[in-house]
Amino acid sequence: MNAADLVLRTAAAAGVELCFANPGTTEMPLVLALDRLPAIRPVLGLHETICTGAADGYARIAGRPALVLLHLGPGLANGLANLHNARRARTPVLVLVGDHATWHLDADAPLTMDIRAAAGTVSRWYARLVRAEEAGRLTAEAVAAARSGTGGIATLVLPHDLQMEPVGDAPIRVREPEPPAAPDPGALAAAAELLRGAAPGALFLGGAALHGLGLRLAGRIARACGATLLCETGFARLETGAGLPAVRRLPYFPEQAQALLDGFAHVVGIGARRPVSFFGWPGKPSRYLEGRAGVVWAAGPDENALAALETLAAELGAGEDDPGAPFDPPEAATGRLDGAKLAAVLARSLPEGAIVVPTAVTNAYPFSAVAHRARPHTQLALTGGAIGEGPALAIGAALAAPGRKVVNLEADGSGAYALQAFWTQAREGLDIVTIVCANRAYRILGLELERTGEAPGGPATRALTALEPPAIDWVDVARGLGVPGARVETAEDLARILEVALREPGPFLIEAVL
Amino acid sequence: MNAADLVLRTAAAAGVELCFANPGTTEMPLVLALDRLPAIRPVLGLHETICTGAADGYARIAGRPALVLLHLGPGLANGLANLHNARRARTPVLVLVGDHATWHLDADAPLTMDIRAAAGTVSRWYARLVRAEEAGRLTAEAVAAARSGTGGIATLVLPHDLQMEPVGDAPIRVREPEPPAAPDPGALAAAAELLRGAAPGALFLGGAALHGLGLRLAGRIARACGATLLCETGFARLETGAGLPAVRRLPYFPEQAQALLDGFAHVVGIGARRPVSFFGWPGKPSRYLEGRAGVVWAAGPDENALAALETLAAELGAGEDDPGAPFDPPEAATGRLDGAKLAAVLARSLPEGAIVVPTAVTNAYPFSAVAHRARPHTQLALTGGAIGEGPALAIGAALAAPGRKVVNLEADGSGAYALQAFWTQAREGLDIVTIVCANRAYRILGLELERTGEAPGGPATRALTALEPPAIDWVDVARGLGVPGARVETAEDLARILEVALREPGPFLIEAVL
Repeated sequence: MNAADLVLRTAAAAGVELCFANPGTTEMPLVLALDRLPAIRPVLGLHETICTGAADGYARIAGRPALVLLHLGPGLANGLANLHNARRARTPVLVLVGDHATWHLDADAPLTMDIRAAAGTVSRWYARLVRAEEAGRLTAEAVAAARSGTGGIATLVLPHDLQMEPVGDAPIRVREPEPPAAPDPGALAAAAELLRGAAPGALFLGGAALHGLGLRLAGRIARACGATLLCETGFARLETGAGLPAVRRLPYFPEQAQALLDGFAHVVGIGARRPVSFFGWPGKPSRYLEGRAGVVWAAGPDENALAALETLAAELGAGEDDPGAPFDPPEAATGRLDGAKLAAVLARSLPEGAIVVPTAVTNAYPFSAVAHRARPHTQLALTGGAIGEGPALAIGAALAAPGRKVVNLEADGSGAYALQAFWTQAREGLDIVTIVCANRAYRILGLELERTGEAPGGPATRALTALEPPAIDWVDVARGLGVPGARVETAEDLARILEVALREPGPFLIEAVL
Repeated sequence: MNAADLVLRTAAAAGVELCFANPGTTEMPLVLALDRLPAIRPVLGLHETICTGAADGYARIAGRPALVLLHLGPGLANGLANLHNARRARTPVLVLVGDHATWHLDADAPLTMDIRAAAGTVSRWYARLVRAEEAGRLTAEAVAAARSGTGGIATLVLPHDLQMEPVGDAPIRVREPEPPAAPDPGALAAAAELLRGAAPGALFLGGAALHGLGLRLAGRIARACGATLLCETGFARLETGAGLPAVRRLPYFPEQAQALLDGFAHVVGIGARRPVSFFGWPGKPSRYLEGRAGVVWAAGPDENALAALETLAAELGAGEDDPGAPFDPPEAATGRLDGAKLAAVLARSLPEGAIVVPTAVTNAYPFSAVAHRARPHTQLALTGGAIGEGPALAIGAALAAPGRKVVNLEADGSGAYALQAFWTQAREGLDIVTIVCANRAYRILGLELERTGEAPGGPATRALTALEPPAIDWVDVARGLGVPGARVETAEDLARILEVALREPGPFLIEAVL
């Protein structure tokens, strides 16, 4: 057994079962060690951003980390933006970075880079292996660090020569993760006090409060005290649809978000950060809840949201589940597609238990508005604003939940960041339907200019915000990467093609021309 | 005039004419300022790695920096790997990063990231605008820093609110760059002494010694003293072909590189780093020239290589140009393609003045072996080992040299990193012919395993090194992104298609099945 074996066996003993990788020479001992350990399945991404995005999607559904295996500093750099998204989602990820041999590092060979500095921008835990026999202990610590609290990124750098060094047959250690911090009892009491008030309040939810037991408890509390459930714009994982408590997503634009929050006499936060504006728009607020009364944070994003919900439910005598609304999808849409019609078609077609990745920048919001009327499903949103994660998130989600259909509602602008993902979807035969909202523009930037009265801008603005010419032929691109597809222009065609795509196994891409 | 105008006008006054961009909300004031300044042409990349790679290719040919406009920390992160390559090439690049408004930064909104840490991994100069009126001075300093010495990356962070602030109509400043450091006279004298010796020596060249006047001077010196010209494996820019001094590229694998260097009684370095092994292979050397006699570095990579060459040429009375060899391409190849046949076809077809980007990881080396027998042309290699830069380098080269054909000899593994580049090639109508060496594998990793006796490896090794199934259909992918293409399997078909592709304007992709 060498140190590479010890790293992988320790990770496997701690529950790791997948390794998203794009390895190079310095990671080959780890690749060969994977040959000897069928318990961890390797999945190749053609660009590191696919690997890191997939690991984020996997852990958001599976609740435990995957490995990401990256090639020195440049491989880490390529995967950094989606690790940033994962950091914002508080997703547990264990990043393994191969590096030059210890004795070669000082030669400053071409691929040498400051790995610590790059990793430091996203990692809550970082270490470099300096003695092969420490490989097991450090891996156990890394997995525990990734899983501790509400989750985060642990990065372990493994020099090439040390990976190959023999290590003794010591027992494999697994370290238990630290639980999230307990909520402050004073804050819980204050929250209960607020929620008992007569005026209409809101629960602002994130993290564990948006799915499973957490969402059920939130629904009970809301029912008991007449509160509205809200959630972060960029939530990590939300369960919604028929039979589930309705959760309203905070709007993206600040005037809408502020107006929504201002409509509630009190706001109690559980598992979420205090909401801030996505950008600092002139004359608009930065922090929506600053300086107002009736705001209590029962549990911050690093605290135990489930414990907070249980305490509040008990305090308020909230024992009755919110039965949710029955399946009541929007009317069947007809004619040329737009965002609202697309949302209606999807809400009607979505099978129970599906996972939706609504990462289309402008066209996912109409779906958010009707998603609670669809069959019950899970959603994974973009948490860190680094666009282009959707097709990779979908890979991870599909691998975490075989048997559940994944639908990636993607934009053309953001989808073009992650073309490489389609190849992995094809190779792994994943049940992913991608709907590309093809409006041939970074439409969000046009909206920004309209808001500031500067639309449409001049030739440079057009050159930097229009995605045609040439219009991307998504069906060609997908086919070239192994994914069949079709182009649709009407709601009827979308409904028809989507039905087939959701029924057939394997990946499919629909270019929805908007 | 606002600070964004001042930034761009200052850059334009300093000779900047292109801006490779993927902007977002926080860069819109700079985009609108581009509308008002036709002197700087905006070029959109669908992923930031295309923007940074294109800026690298542009400046390597143009000799002056382009702008790269990126969206906060995640945009910078996406472009980081090719900035790493540019850093290794000593390419001047001016990176502008939009950031949150100064008053919003502390809210830690989703896209907030440690920009300084990420930028620090690649930048020789870094600043953040804190007062709008400093925008001109900082931009002038940034351009000068990028152009100083032998070139490098300057990163200027521009908060959104400050970009929009009005600034006075102060005169636009341009700061002159600092010249590269003068070579050490003692080293020059020692180098001249060595080169006068009777035994066969080598000049080990990099930077300015590989093109134009530098190469001409190197050829004169070599002719005067019977030396062989060698160059770095990962050179930034090399001129080669008929009528030019022959320069031999240092092999990639250490045993071959060491043997080549050991064959010379002395080695004089000019403009290059002392050569090191690409990776630290067990039992192989790290630094090829360590501990041996007869090694003098006349000019390091940060010193003035042209001055060193001029001094040495004068010292050695080297006044006569090396006339080079006449155009003498390999025999016409026939039958099923392999790397050598592909190299022969390309060497025969390449037009005079072409720019070749030989970034295929394994299949560019056969071309390197015969490139000096082709018509005179320029080559841009991968300098930092971060694969996937070729299609972006080609964009920059084509924009820097209208009228010259660019040929990107790309691998399927590395080319798949940069699919987004084909869209920009199509949009800009660039004269780029991409030859994808489609061997359906990260072949270099197979070679590594063969070298260590571990080939072919098991199922995990196959999963992480084979690029099929599915085989990428490069013609479909390129067509989907607006680039016409064709697939070839024989040398005859490659020769025929290549001839047409080189004759027609605009981009074309050839999938060469190996």
